[in-house]
Amino acid sequence: MADKKKAKAPAKKAVEVESPEAIAHKVKIMADGIVGQIKKQEDPIFTTQQRGRSNVEFSEDKKVLTLGDKTTSRNFLNIGHAKKFMQTMMVAEKTHNYLLENKTASIREVYYELKHTLGKSKENTFEDQTESDACIVDLEHSVDTIREKLNLHANPKGTLYGDITLVDRKHNEDEFNAAKLGRGGWSIMSRVEPEEIEIKKVSADYVLVIETEAMYERLVEEGFAKKNKAILISTGGQAARGTRRLVHRIHKEQGLPVYMFTDGDPYGWYIYSVVKQGSMALAAHSDFLAVPDAKYIGMTLEDVEDFGLQNVTEKMKEGDVKRAKEMLDYPWFQNNEWQAELKKAINLKIRIEQQALANRSLSFVADEYLPKKIKKKEFLP
Amino acid sequence: MADKKKAKAPAKKAVEVESPEAIAHKVKIMADGIVGQIKKQEDPIFTTQQRGRSNVEFSEDKKVLTLGDKTTSRNFLNIGHAKKFMQTMMVAEKTHNYLLENKTASIREVYYELKHTLGKSKENTFEDQTESDACIVDLEHSVDTIREKLNLHANPKGTLYGDITLVDRKHNEDEFNAAKLGRGGWSIMSRVEPEEIEIKKVSADYVLVIETEAMYERLVEEGFAKKNKAILISTGGQAARGTRRLVHRIHKEQGLPVYMFTDGDPYGWYIYSVVKQGSMALAAHSDFLAVPDAKYIGMTLEDVEDFGLQNVTEKMKEGDVKRAKEMLDYPWFQNNEWQAELKKAINLKIRIEQQALANRSLSFVADEYLPKKIKKKEFLP
Repeated sequence: MADKKKAKAPAKKAVEVESPEAIAHKVKIMADGIVGQIKKQEDPIFTTQQRGRSNVEFSEDKKVLTLGDKTTSRNFLNIGHAKKFMQTMMVAEKTHNYLLENKTASIREVYYELKHTLGKSKENTFEDQTESDACIVDLEHSVDTIREKLNLHANPKGTLYGDITLVDRKHNEDEFNAAKLGRGGWSIMSRVEPEEIEIKKVSADYVLVIETEAMYERLVEEGFAKKNKAILISTGGQAARGTRRLVHRIHKEQGLPVYMFTDGDPYGWYIYSVVKQGSMALAAHSDFLAVPDAKYIGMTLEDVEDFGLQNVTEKMKEGDVKRAKEMLDYPWFQNNEWQAELKKAINLKIRIEQQALANRSLSFVADEYLPKKIKKKEFLP
Repeated sequence: MADKKKAKAPAKKAVEVESPEAIAHKVKIMADGIVGQIKKQEDPIFTTQQRGRSNVEFSEDKKVLTLGDKTTSRNFLNIGHAKKFMQTMMVAEKTHNYLLENKTASIREVYYELKHTLGKSKENTFEDQTESDACIVDLEHSVDTIREKLNLHANPKGTLYGDITLVDRKHNEDEFNAAKLGRGGWSIMSRVEPEEIEIKKVSADYVLVIETEAMYERLVEEGFAKKNKAILISTGGQAARGTRRLVHRIHKEQGLPVYMFTDGDPYGWYIYSVVKQGSMALAAHSDFLAVPDAKYIGMTLEDVEDFGLQNVTEKMKEGDVKRAKEMLDYPWFQNNEWQAELKKAINLKIRIEQQALANRSLSFVADEYLPKKIKKKEFLP
């Protein structure tokens, strides 16, 4: 069985663990500063990193999107800042309590938990979740951490299959191997921090990240993971944070290469970009989430010719062509391979789906397409 | 541990198993009929059930949507029918082969597998997946089965957690308990037919079906399933067929009651309707998918008053108000409780989300809201 296979000995790295108490302490230091200002009868100031395009950079060194050095401050005695200042303090207090009480919360729950009418006024603390979400991001930046470590999370999405053993330290030390859960696999949690989810053992040569659930099911049915010593992770469209974090961790802790398998279209390329380089909105957290070494295995427009898939391409909509043109300027697509791929798509105005490989045969993707590409290292960078 | 708890002794029923060979045989009988007509030089005719509103009925007896007796035929020698006739035969042959070869396919793969250009013409077998999807439905009706038993499936979605032991007979006889997979739970497959997925043991008093993944995670974190002997199933919005089939099977085979927990709005009520009564589009398959005994636990507009949630309701959009008005006419909402609930929503024009319960406290839903409602049987029918 899978467990008995000899594990590869990749460049495993120590897991960096930061305790909830340590994170709570960071939040408290920030809050203590504010309290100190108040006691000195100064105008309390909350400082965080500036967001938005003007402060997002592509680090040529790390090969990921990062946030620049620009900061932004909010003064409580500025009438334009006062409400947001209050909101940020409310969120900070809440997350501090979550950490000490060993609770986690979805960002929607945070909004609902904090929403109330102030005193006898008709003024609500929050009108909309976008307001509390913004405070969460401010807090992440201010205390230099990610929301997962503040015990916050968004919705989960994504599935894991393959010879990887996880331990949930916060749930009876459950230990399970994701190749032994039938064909369904493990439903990836919204938070998979190393303090809670331990990657105990991995016996695989690489991680294959797959855009569609249906292709994931195809590869499971074909026994692909076992035959090829692969870990399969489906994102079900754009990858949720929990899924990105898990891919990042397997890559970093176990030293496994990551290959991305998406539809050959702007949406697929964007999914790849986000897993690889991080996203504009989360540029500050690339160190926790991005996998700059990830490679793109397909679908490509070369595949259409190489495998005779001309009959099963789809036309690109105008919006897709426009997005493909924008992608020509992305820093991580500044190489001959991607420029050629994008230009080909723009000229031909076609896209190709993963499942179009079924036109050859159902098992073609598992028996030929993927193994050959991986063997020959036919990747886009 | 959960396994050692005394299992309830509900009215367990024998599992009806239909082998792939038996289904393949049904398809072959249909095809043999066509071949016989051709050999007799007759115009080949394919007959299936008529779909659409005009042939959908609400069975007062079974309390589910069903398809009426009207049939529709397609003659190969009718130029308006010929292409669809050919398409249907292609799909029938394909599924027959899947069954004999022990393969399954997504409905998108079927489309891609069968799409090609005919001979030297410029005519494609299929232009669009809607064409092959329609043939699949025709075939299901014609041979009186569901696509899952034809080895076809759509995308999976949904997660399972709780003291339920499943065995995947087609995957090394994997046996696992969905309460022991950490907090992530089991990712429900797109097909969970009894021939392949055995429900080996359930130690629980009821099934709680939950609309949002985030509420599911909340209940898992609160230890709700163990404390209350509940099986938790999240649908992540509208329930996928695999999830509906699993809920149906646990209910039918294990005799467990099913409670639905959705947002209090037309979308939530629709999710409830589909799980309970089946859907218009799949009216022929209610016997495989519907749970007419399911009860609605919340959210209700009474909850808003009972638990002081006035601050955290949301306004209904005009489209939602319109849908709520339409729901007044649904056969299964023809009772005082639902009429009152719907009218209240229409008058107040508000909706209430599951996560709004966080306004009381994060654990309120698990410690008070759900246990009290279940104890007092405060359900909508």
